[in-house]
Amino acid sequence: MDTEVSVIGLGALGSALAGAFLSAGHSTTVWNRTRAKALPLVARGAVEAASPEAAVGAGPLVVVCLPTYDVAREVLSPCAAGLVGRTLVNLTSGSPAHARDAAGRARELGVRYLDGAALAAPSWVGRPDSLQLYGGPRPVFEAHRGVLAALGDPVYLGDDPALPAVHDIALLGLLWSALTGWLHGVALTGADGPGGGVSATAYTAVVGRWMPTVGRLMGEYARQVDAGAYPAGGFPLDQHLMLMGLLEHAGELRGVESGLPQAFLGLAGRAVEDGHGADGYARLIEYVRGRAGR
Amino acid sequence: MDTEVSVIGLGALGSALAGAFLSAGHSTTVWNRTRAKALPLVARGAVEAASPEAAVGAGPLVVVCLPTYDVAREVLSPCAAGLVGRTLVNLTSGSPAHARDAAGRARELGVRYLDGAALAAPSWVGRPDSLQLYGGPRPVFEAHRGVLAALGDPVYLGDDPALPAVHDIALLGLLWSALTGWLHGVALTGADGPGGGVSATAYTAVVGRWMPTVGRLMGEYARQVDAGAYPAGGFPLDQHLMLMGLLEHAGELRGVESGLPQAFLGLAGRAVEDGHGADGYARLIEYVRGRAGR
Ligand SMILES: NC(=O)c1ccc[n+]([C@@H]2O[C@H](COP(=O)([O-])OP(=O)(O)OC[C@H]3O[C@@H](n4cnc5c(N)ncnc54)[C@H](OP(=O)(O)O)[C@@H]3O)[C@@H](O)[C@H]2O)c1
Ligand SMILES: NC(=O)c1ccc[n+]([C@@H]2O[C@H](COP(=O)([O-])OP(=O)(O)OC[C@H]3O[C@@H](n4cnc5c(N)ncnc54)[C@H](OP(=O)(O)O)[C@@H]3O)[C@@H](O)[C@H]2O)c1
Repeated sequence: MDTEVSVIGLGALGSALAGAFLSAGHSTTVWNRTRAKALPLVARGAVEAASPEAAVGAGPLVVVCLPTYDVAREVLSPCAAGLVGRTLVNLTSGSPAHARDAAGRARELGVRYLDGAALAAPSWVGRPDSLQLYGGPRPVFEAHRGVLAALGDPVYLGDDPALPAVHDIALLGLLWSALTGWLHGVALTGADGPGGGVSATAYTAVVGRWMPTVGRLMGEYARQVDAGAYPAGGFPLDQHLMLMGLLEHAGELRGVESGLPQAFLGLAGRAVEDGHGADGYARLIEYVRGRAGR
Repeated sequence: MDTEVSVIGLGALGSALAGAFLSAGHSTTVWNRTRAKALPLVARGAVEAASPEAAVGAGPLVVVCLPTYDVAREVLSPCAAGLVGRTLVNLTSGSPAHARDAAGRARELGVRYLDGAALAAPSWVGRPDSLQLYGGPRPVFEAHRGVLAALGDPVYLGDDPALPAVHDIALLGLLWSALTGWLHGVALTGADGPGGGVSATAYTAVVGRWMPTVGRLMGEYARQVDAGAYPAGGFPLDQHLMLMGLLEHAGELRGVESGLPQAFLGLAGRAVEDGHGADGYARLIEYVRGRAGR
């Protein structure tokens, strides 16, 4: 009997993906090298396939989640004929080059292919805000968007199968930057205030009211970066630099780690030295691009 | 004739504050050392006071916005008697010590006092997401919350008048961290993808779908920091460190500036070296706190 989706590779993430399909009511076939990992899913209604070929043959949509592209290639190589006319969605993590390479091979074989990236710990999968990124032919994405939405928020990035890998690492970098800046603020506010400091929870409630402004500025600065013009909008780099100095000083007073403020002080300082102090913050893109932008 | 609010100091920010009170329909008295800056506000219906004393005497709520606490003290010193029984809201930027000092003097004089911080460029003032932070007696804040809401989103932080200054610089640090991480991603995605790279606007649209997860993690990690326990929730520091290495490598390949990733790689690397690789990200608070946390 056909099922709607097959999941190959039931590690921490693959099991969560299969579980989310089941939770959303999609009939699901599963396969894993070590059978034990299939059992909890079978108990929830999944069909276990005896081989990767059988899993591929079970339905129109095959999701693969294995440690590396090399392993995925090895596991799927006996399935080439079975994949023809079906859709393969690869949620294995890899580089842009891995993704283009895999997409090229799928094209040669006549397999519909989407590369993907799941920006999620296993426990996040299935939440409405859990992001999965996809790249490949738009009609292929649209045909499966409904089922893929069981995993969270499916984002179609464009034709190029490398786009998910390119975005994946950039978005993780933003996560760490934001989280490290947040931790820095937790340390600052935790070292001051009544009764020995503000709690992380109290500080973070204020952060929640600040993030809309952060997001709005990203949108404004994105348009400036694309236009290559950086008007200050009443908040010039000179002023950023002066305030960054106060942040550094506040951290020093409280013994807070200074690597992060030094990183953006360094960027803003160079831009101001180069005579861009009257420009807005987005001018810094030229310094972040490094030699790529010269 | 009495007005609802008086604004003393009509620089870039003070003028925006007075303008927002007028836009919200609150009768407003204004004073500035150089009269020319009052004229556009008078044209919009503000009453010009002839002196700081007259501005203070015009109504129950006095907002002061001057370059420094020293200037504010100098301008307000002839007004001490007039301020008794009224509320003074100080939106001048300064340190926690400045705020406690000013609040102490107000208390001695019998002046109701809120310290504040406007996290806003002048053009943002009046937007519903524009944050103003307040510290001081809650009943004083509550009595004026309605009028202060004309400026944006008024956040009451607690009794301690230093809390706005403490939060102000921490939230700016988070802004720069998030923006620098965002720029780093703009540079990475802009250097790769079809037709010579993803536009900043396209990347930022995806960022907008990612920020809810970033905010959710801050909330989860805040509870962990307050509890002093850092379960990994399926995303241990070992894995963060491995992925941070991929980010560094992706940046190197594209010539992107590396100060920011190095800052958080350094923190995570130290934590993993110390044997915390199986813990979650929030463990890093102990490293950000630096010697303050030891
Ligand atoms: N876990 C996460 O938080 C997370 C988040 C985002 C992305 N990812 C990515 O998702 C992918 C899978 O990660 P994971 O955490 O689920 O991995 P995992 O828990 O380590 O599981 C690895 C899976 O691959 C299978 N496997 C390994 N070598 C194999 C081989 N030669 N032949 C057949 N099967 C093989 C394993 O089968 P056995 O059971 O037989 O060992 C297991 O099912 C990776 O690319 C990872 O980077 C993971
Ligand atoms: N602008 C922003 O984006 C922004 C954002 C957040 C916080 N802030 C804070 O808001 C406060 C005001 O900033 P601003 O940008 O509005 O300043 P500004 O544009 O430089 O204006 C300074 C104001 O202070 C007055 N002033 C200076 N010295 C004085 C004195 N000795 N006696 C009387 N008046 C005096 C000036 O009067 P004259 O017109 O007579 O010179 C002018 O009205 C500062 O603490 C700043 O850090 C500003």
